[in-house]
Amino acid sequence: MSRHRVEVLIQPRPGLLDPEGKVVHHALDSLGFPGIEEVRVGRAIHLEVDAADAEEARRQVDRMCRRLLANPVTEDYEIRIRAETEEERR
Amino acid sequence: MSRHRVEVLIQPRPGLLDPEGKVVHHALDSLGFPGIEEVRVGRAIHLEVDAADAEEARRQVDRMCRRLLANPVTEDYEIRIRAETEEERR
Repeated sequence: MSRHRVEVLIQPRPGLLDPEGKVVHHALDSLGFPGIEEVRVGRAIHLEVDAADAEEARRQVDRMCRRLLANPVTEDYEIRIRAETEEERR
Repeated sequence: MSRHRVEVLIQPRPGLLDPEGKVVHHALDSLGFPGIEEVRVGRAIHLEVDAADAEEARRQVDRMCRRLLANPVTEDYEIRIRAETEEERR
């Protein structure tokens, strides 16, 4: 059993309205940022989960998404097991 | 000039309260999911940006984060230039 850092990205399903994305897009235009083609706003959920291995952690989090975290009608979700990378964090 | 898919992950800063994360953690406990050690809830913003190259896209999005997307007092943000990966998406 070890602890796994898992990231879940939840987004409005393509083709469905994303009013928050539209508002952010408009605000960025108003602030003078050019060349923005699309903005979609979703949720990012970070979990630390105890599981036998990464695949078991992924299965657990998949069940959590179906039961609680994501709306299966309007949202898509993506589960990532975090590895240490050269990400930029500020 | 080419189009870049950029992902911005915004999270409550460590040490600051994350009431939404607490609610989700409690709900997962109530649903019988064991072994969850921490839950943090943030936002995931996906943008498509026209820029000369990936570094210029990152600089533009960094300015957007400072001006609008993130709250510099309470939130951390992370900018990722998306590459095609074997992510699991449902």
